[in-house]
Amino acid sequence: MRILRLPQLQEAFDQGAILYAVERALIDHAAGRVQAPLPGQLLFTDPPGDCHVKYGHLAGADTFAVKVATGFYANAAQGLPVNNGLILTFDARTGAPTALLLDEGWLTAWRTAAATALAATRLAPAQARSFGVAGAGLQATLALEWIGLLRPDWRAFLWARDGAKASDLAGRTGAHPLRAIDDLIAQADVVITTTPSTAPLFAADRARPGQLFVGIGADSPGKQELPPDLFARAAWVAVDDLAQAADHGDWGSAVRLGLSAPDAAILLGNMLAGTAQPDWSRGDVGIVDLTGIAAEDVAIAGLFAGHIG
Amino acid sequence: MRILRLPQLQEAFDQGAILYAVERALIDHAAGRVQAPLPGQLLFTDPPGDCHVKYGHLAGADTFAVKVATGFYANAAQGLPVNNGLILTFDARTGAPTALLLDEGWLTAWRTAAATALAATRLAPAQARSFGVAGAGLQATLALEWIGLLRPDWRAFLWARDGAKASDLAGRTGAHPLRAIDDLIAQADVVITTTPSTAPLFAADRARPGQLFVGIGADSPGKQELPPDLFARAAWVAVDDLAQAADHGDWGSAVRLGLSAPDAAILLGNMLAGTAQPDWSRGDVGIVDLTGIAAEDVAIAGLFAGHIG
Repeated sequence: MRILRLPQLQEAFDQGAILYAVERALIDHAAGRVQAPLPGQLLFTDPPGDCHVKYGHLAGADTFAVKVATGFYANAAQGLPVNNGLILTFDARTGAPTALLLDEGWLTAWRTAAATALAATRLAPAQARSFGVAGAGLQATLALEWIGLLRPDWRAFLWARDGAKASDLAGRTGAHPLRAIDDLIAQADVVITTTPSTAPLFAADRARPGQLFVGIGADSPGKQELPPDLFARAAWVAVDDLAQAADHGDWGSAVRLGLSAPDAAILLGNMLAGTAQPDWSRGDVGIVDLTGIAAEDVAIAGLFAGHIG
Repeated sequence: MRILRLPQLQEAFDQGAILYAVERALIDHAAGRVQAPLPGQLLFTDPPGDCHVKYGHLAGADTFAVKVATGFYANAAQGLPVNNGLILTFDARTGAPTALLLDEGWLTAWRTAAATALAATRLAPAQARSFGVAGAGLQATLALEWIGLLRPDWRAFLWARDGAKASDLAGRTGAHPLRAIDDLIAQADVVITTTPSTAPLFAADRARPGQLFVGIGADSPGKQELPPDLFARAAWVAVDDLAQAADHGDWGSAVRLGLSAPDAAILLGNMLAGTAQPDWSRGDVGIVDLTGIAAEDVAIAGLFAGHIG
């Protein structure tokens, strides 16, 4: 069993390869080619934290993967990273463990950034000229970087509850910081929410026709970023996984309130594959709700385990 | 993060400590003190295999654990072990990984042997003087060894479909091999089934009044060892976990066929704690259906991670 630590993974980092692998994973997942049971989680209260366990196997692949990702928000006050984790790969013919990727949560961060960037850039309406990120954590940073690389012509905006963090991130990325979330909604054609919020960040009536929203913060029950009634306005809703989004995504909250139909969501992988199209005729905003799927973890683990000798 | 390999774990092996830890785990689980979501599994067909992922946290404990256990039956033909696996431990205050126990499935084998031996010896009727094991794999070997150590006065019997394997195991353990499963049922006061069977091993009418059955082989949907109508005869049924036993244990098959009531099972941990008693007045056999629980994995991982410096 090979053990790969973060510096080795950082050295092997290849943004194009990650984007390709995550796009394939979303498409394979949507096509039903990935065996991926509903992921499980442990929740902690003292101090507050969560642990997500995701695992899966792409039909025919010679490896499968199990990922453990943790988030403990009080770590920041101790100077420790909030997110941590690792991915294990196994031989799908013998069950033997083959590699331990001690990525400290970075593979999850990269695959999430890839899915976010794919959703934000591929599904944006043709007239989009700007994007805005809510939040100032690692995923906000990566969203600004990855979307900025794919769409260097788009203007980048940024808002975070913590103004000092927002200024710092603006300084590091060149994004334009805004004072209020409503300013972000007013300025950005594509809005990406990356916060651990448990209540809607803005009012649905602030959204503008033709705007695309990509929510990635709501990955556990109780988290929420997008207002449920935004879904009532949506022309279309795309999710990475139907069961997960219904269980703990922003879309699930809207379905439970009767503001979106239980069969209203389309799989992001089908949109990326071109087998489904965003239909803007049935409402005035588009929404992508990402919860993070095991297929992405399997794909990125296979990529890094395979690329490093 | 400390990485412990099998030889280090074997050196630290302490049967008494494992029995104590597993008994505490079963009791803690029954008392609701263990956070342990329904475990997940991946199933493979080419070659056939399964991967079980279990994880949990004992309230207040400073570590939590995630276990991956695989079983690939075609490995034996290649001279590879059928079972493999590992356990990860994490700091429950920060989410950081603390240890990787590369136990190759042995911690699972030991904790299963401990639960089996506890069930077979503590819940047997006072008049029991013999036990018999169906199967000739690792868990059969360990059941013979562990029960033999706890009850050196009991006569040990053994039956397996593969006669050569049974003879070999009989030679290694001193157990008396029998030609047919029906002979095992006729001779043994306590019967332990440890096979990967997908159909009942014997007819329910072969069971004798006062006999105790402990089924440990059925750990995935589709596996079955005990005849469902044996449950209709049962004075009492004990399970390590209600949801798991209902989902993929032998007891679940009986419930789905209407041969046992959905509320008929008692938690083994409550019987070990003495808060529930086996009531022999309502039927003529006792049944323990073990599916293996995360609480046991958390406990044995904590034991070994804590004992090795």
